[in-house]
Amino acid sequence: LIVGAGDDAAVIAAPDRRVVAATDLLIEGRHFRREWSGGYDIGAKAAARNLIDVAAMGARPTALLIGMAVPGDLPASWALDLVKGLVAECQAAGAVVAGGDTSGSETIMLGVTALGELGGAEPVTRGGARPGDLVALAGAVGSAAAGLALLAAGASDRGSASGSASGSGSGSDRGAAAPAGDHPGLAELIAAHRRPRPPYQAGPQAAAAGATAMIDISDGLIADLGHVARASGVRIQLATGPLTAGPAVHATALAAAADTVGASWLDWVLTGGDDHALAATFPAGTPLPPPWTVIGEVVPGSGVTVDGVPWSGAGGWQHFSVSS
Amino acid sequence: LIVGAGDDAAVIAAPDRRVVAATDLLIEGRHFRREWSGGYDIGAKAAARNLIDVAAMGARPTALLIGMAVPGDLPASWALDLVKGLVAECQAAGAVVAGGDTSGSETIMLGVTALGELGGAEPVTRGGARPGDLVALAGAVGSAAAGLALLAAGASDRGSASGSASGSGSGSDRGAAAPAGDHPGLAELIAAHRRPRPPYQAGPQAAAAGATAMIDISDGLIADLGHVARASGVRIQLATGPLTAGPAVHATALAAAADTVGASWLDWVLTGGDDHALAATFPAGTPLPPPWTVIGEVVPGSGVTVDGVPWSGAGGWQHFSVSS
Repeated sequence: LIVGAGDDAAVIAAPDRRVVAATDLLIEGRHFRREWSGGYDIGAKAAARNLIDVAAMGARPTALLIGMAVPGDLPASWALDLVKGLVAECQAAGAVVAGGDTSGSETIMLGVTALGELGGAEPVTRGGARPGDLVALAGAVGSAAAGLALLAAGASDRGSASGSASGSGSGSDRGAAAPAGDHPGLAELIAAHRRPRPPYQAGPQAAAAGATAMIDISDGLIADLGHVARASGVRIQLATGPLTAGPAVHATALAAAADTVGASWLDWVLTGGDDHALAATFPAGTPLPPPWTVIGEVVPGSGVTVDGVPWSGAGGWQHFSVSS
Repeated sequence: LIVGAGDDAAVIAAPDRRVVAATDLLIEGRHFRREWSGGYDIGAKAAARNLIDVAAMGARPTALLIGMAVPGDLPASWALDLVKGLVAECQAAGAVVAGGDTSGSETIMLGVTALGELGGAEPVTRGGARPGDLVALAGAVGSAAAGLALLAAGASDRGSASGSASGSGSGSDRGAAAPAGDHPGLAELIAAHRRPRPPYQAGPQAAAAGATAMIDISDGLIADLGHVARASGVRIQLATGPLTAGPAVHATALAAAADTVGASWLDWVLTGGDDHALAATFPAGTPLPPPWTVIGEVVPGSGVTVDGVPWSGAGGWQHFSVSS
């Protein structure tokens, strides 16, 4: 950071003469609810969504710019928690808050832009997957969607946004206090919804290991693998065996959550996007650094198959329903 | 632009290993009104606000990232005009649209981030003004504020946003069609409100000429010179004679507008910010390239004086009222 907040613009180092940039709007009622998450978690999540987009190009996040619009009657402690969450997630990703802008509005709105640097590596786009490549995953899938379903089913009564009002500023631990249900894993799922833990370092790691394509899982695993398949002109064959047995899927907790709310936990795994995992393709035989885990392969064709069955490709978690 | 829209993030060239970045939120009802401006002008203005912030550091704008949230019932032609306006203003500033993100919302919201490159020059902050420096201005002041006052006084009946509905896509000329009042300059003032014309090139020009401090006039001339005075630890003496006689002030049109709405035109000049002019300080004796015009000088002390009278410094156009 060469010039920080307080001037007309920030100046940020771009050591290899390129800058990676991603932007996003988050709107109260659309992307978050104050009754389900405190300011700290919402700030952390807003930062995470953009920082992982930068990592998904193979870059190291360096800086975050924030436009923030809040109602005049928003409690100052809530706004302060929001900023704390943004700053904390920046630090978790190795980046800094470089600047921003504030204004008034009826509901809370955040415009977040993340910048990053490639460290001399080539950017990893969605379009480079080739037949024969491995498909691998880093980070969790399904946890945040399960946490949201638990909250929607009424699990928000305890361990919810009230934790933020206490001013602790460490909202990410709140979900663990008193979750609904008996299984201890349910608290972790709710925490995963409130504050995702994207695998930032796995992005540059994949680029260094020779990843041919990469994407942030934000629309859901199937939908986002579909984006890679389309951009690369290939078919992706997903195998649920290694996927559900691997570290990305917290199967026991998901099964307990599915029992609690009467849903299919495989739905969450295949179509939930809010964990912000990374998926990437690598040439066959590439030794994958942890946490990267093989979940499928690239073949000629188009679209995505799940255990050999072609997927309709209709979209992400919002549009998809299947019985497991 | 190395990787453009359609991937997780854009990759933009940063030839001198630094990137300049500014961000802003624009919200319907707060920053613009659909009844006073068409989509094209609102898009152009949203881009202009951020691109000039980058130029105010001495940088050349290179790229724009856009987060856009619109209601589901927004006419597609309006949204298309908005994008056209964003793209056109980018081109006017020498930049490209590098990427973005769309979502739904109750009202229109734009999150705009501009990037730029310094071409090897040092960034020009607000904090470098020294006693003895000249104070100079590039671009218009007062015009947009006068245009807004005309619209608020009912001059919007003709030549208004209806021009956009016709699908012409060239909204910037609409104000000229049929303005309220008799003076032909009034149409230009309304056009200046709808689509400001910031002096992008004057930013890098000032940096090359040795500017010691620079700022975008967005809060109003007095308020923004006050920001420079505070950041630099100096007093700025503004002289209204050279200011109002110079190219920044369209005095005849402003006087006609003031007559029409019963306001003081000097108020608009001193406190109107929406033209997005640039103010900068230069070492005494610096030959200033046009359009830079001397409007004052830097002396020891604090705050801003206008023709020798200390200014209260209470703020920008929203809070200031004086009889002329």
